[in-house]
Amino acid sequence: MSLQYRTGLQDIPSYDAAPERIWGIQINANECNMPMPPLVEERVLTRLSRVAFNRYPNEQYADLVEQIAKNFRLQSDQILIGSGSSEIIEKLFYCFGGSPEKKIVYPDPSFSMYHIYAKAAQATAVEVPLEADMTLDIDKFVSAVVDNQASLAVICNPNNPTGTVLSVSDIQYIADNIPESTAFLVDEAYVEFYGKSATGLLKDYPNLIIARTFSKAYGLAATRVGYMLASRAITDMIGKAYMPYHMNTLSLVTADICYQMRQEFVPHIQIMISERKRMAEQVKQLKGFAVYPSETNFLLVHNNDIDGLIERLEANDIGVRKFGKDSRLADCVRISMGTREENDTWYAVCKAFSEGRA
Amino acid sequence: MSLQYRTGLQDIPSYDAAPERIWGIQINANECNMPMPPLVEERVLTRLSRVAFNRYPNEQYADLVEQIAKNFRLQSDQILIGSGSSEIIEKLFYCFGGSPEKKIVYPDPSFSMYHIYAKAAQATAVEVPLEADMTLDIDKFVSAVVDNQASLAVICNPNNPTGTVLSVSDIQYIADNIPESTAFLVDEAYVEFYGKSATGLLKDYPNLIIARTFSKAYGLAATRVGYMLASRAITDMIGKAYMPYHMNTLSLVTADICYQMRQEFVPHIQIMISERKRMAEQVKQLKGFAVYPSETNFLLVHNNDIDGLIERLEANDIGVRKFGKDSRLADCVRISMGTREENDTWYAVCKAFSEGRA
Repeated sequence: MSLQYRTGLQDIPSYDAAPERIWGIQINANECNMPMPPLVEERVLTRLSRVAFNRYPNEQYADLVEQIAKNFRLQSDQILIGSGSSEIIEKLFYCFGGSPEKKIVYPDPSFSMYHIYAKAAQATAVEVPLEADMTLDIDKFVSAVVDNQASLAVICNPNNPTGTVLSVSDIQYIADNIPESTAFLVDEAYVEFYGKSATGLLKDYPNLIIARTFSKAYGLAATRVGYMLASRAITDMIGKAYMPYHMNTLSLVTADICYQMRQEFVPHIQIMISERKRMAEQVKQLKGFAVYPSETNFLLVHNNDIDGLIERLEANDIGVRKFGKDSRLADCVRISMGTREENDTWYAVCKAFSEGRA
Repeated sequence: MSLQYRTGLQDIPSYDAAPERIWGIQINANECNMPMPPLVEERVLTRLSRVAFNRYPNEQYADLVEQIAKNFRLQSDQILIGSGSSEIIEKLFYCFGGSPEKKIVYPDPSFSMYHIYAKAAQATAVEVPLEADMTLDIDKFVSAVVDNQASLAVICNPNNPTGTVLSVSDIQYIADNIPESTAFLVDEAYVEFYGKSATGLLKDYPNLIIARTFSKAYGLAATRVGYMLASRAITDMIGKAYMPYHMNTLSLVTADICYQMRQEFVPHIQIMISERKRMAEQVKQLKGFAVYPSETNFLLVHNNDIDGLIERLEANDIGVRKFGKDSRLADCVRISMGTREENDTWYAVCKAFSEGRA
């Protein structure tokens, strides 16, 4: 006799916990390919050496919240911290899901996990196709939200994996035209590379939620720390989905030091932006290549012989992000910006490929 | 107009994220009051200094799983790692819940979070009262499971907060007499202080699940690492409730080093056990005090003037675990074993209190 699992659990896809291949040049996960700035690393390691490993997390959560609140001129109770913005988004989908009548609207293509989170939350996913140039028609998006009386509308801005953006006034237009009963999440995982955040709208839109992460611009993917900004009415309810001690002390103190020293990351961010600009200019001149405009730390690159290109890159120990054959991005790869040297290396492979050289 | 939250979310209690008071003698959370063994700490800090903060967790999860599997002579796919055994338990309740028809049976008093996890999972909690001496009548427990056709039966062994235990043959008796359609979780958070684990039963009971933690005997409460052992059919299904990258690298490598060096923790565990024995002997001789037999790192202490006792302890900057006025433990406090010096200090306060001295 089988066990009595939760309805719908069977349909959630399983993940393979097997480690992924480590590439010589690792540009498949939009990580920051530079180590922590040395000054910051020194302080982080000193702080880690002072952690009372035997004690449950306590004031470390509040310390990080307080810093973030201060920076955004918000109240501490408007902030929740999660295990990466992944957990922030997962919990939001959970809280605005629970049955197929709950509709969650987001663009497609966008962050691939939205689909999984919607499924896990037993909500109905409503995907709004991006236009041919991978931009979003905001009127189509608003219509989908209104027509479905969505419980949650989601915009990833800048959008992963396309790199394309909406302006803050586009975001405001959406906020103005969707129902007040729809929670509106703006996933700003890559916003530090764009510079234009919707956080300024929080005070005027009580249904607006912003998700941020330390994984990208701060290069802290290993620590799994993200945060959410919203009105207190929302954080109060979403906070119920987080159990006590869901964050660990090591990650909290690491993020806390990095946030205190965030000026030290500005040069890193500037390098990633300038590399993105440099590589976009170069790649778009290669025969057979097209590049979507990006305001992130990655480029979405189109090539008609994508399998050939990927094979060539992988033969050179370069790992990029591929998309499924049934995806609209089947002819694309997403390339994260590495160091200047790494970028020159993958570019040389692309160039040789475009020229038909081995 | 209000937002469209998940049904039932409103009813989940909120937690106050405000830091708790730090006591001079902190014996309220069953933490290990000794720092990490110096040899281990040195290796942990060295390992932390080598973490690639900018990379998503990868092989670190598999490394820890492999070590645990080897120790228990299980396959790697029989193990899941979570953010403390808390998350392990939360996810199990989630996976065996989802509607009020799903019944989750556990003893009362037991780990206070079971009640919350059942509520969060929208399952029906069925509590089996412990006897007057805080032991469990296993026939009553089996009946409750059978009568309710429970989706999940839970035993905390040794039991928190009473310290009382079931033998492995008691556990086996329960496993033999509950339906095969009931998943059977044995929460062994404190088992290292008892020494008798149900893990040997895993091969014979495909519905058996064991939860363990690094927070207590290994003194790693700060890192939030726990694990679950079960048949592959169960780990496959429960694994669906965990999103990718739910564990962070810092906690994984810390637990990995500690597990490699687990022999170094044996003296710590022995100290905690001998202190528990010493303090139980002493306290039970104090007038007005009673102590429940414990196989853990804490004692459940009964006193008819519990408010007076707590007030006296707190006035001496000693923090113990209190219970609500409507709890069966309203006249008890739970005291975690501190260092020998700390234990002598709180004992002296108890002694003075019992003798009516200020």
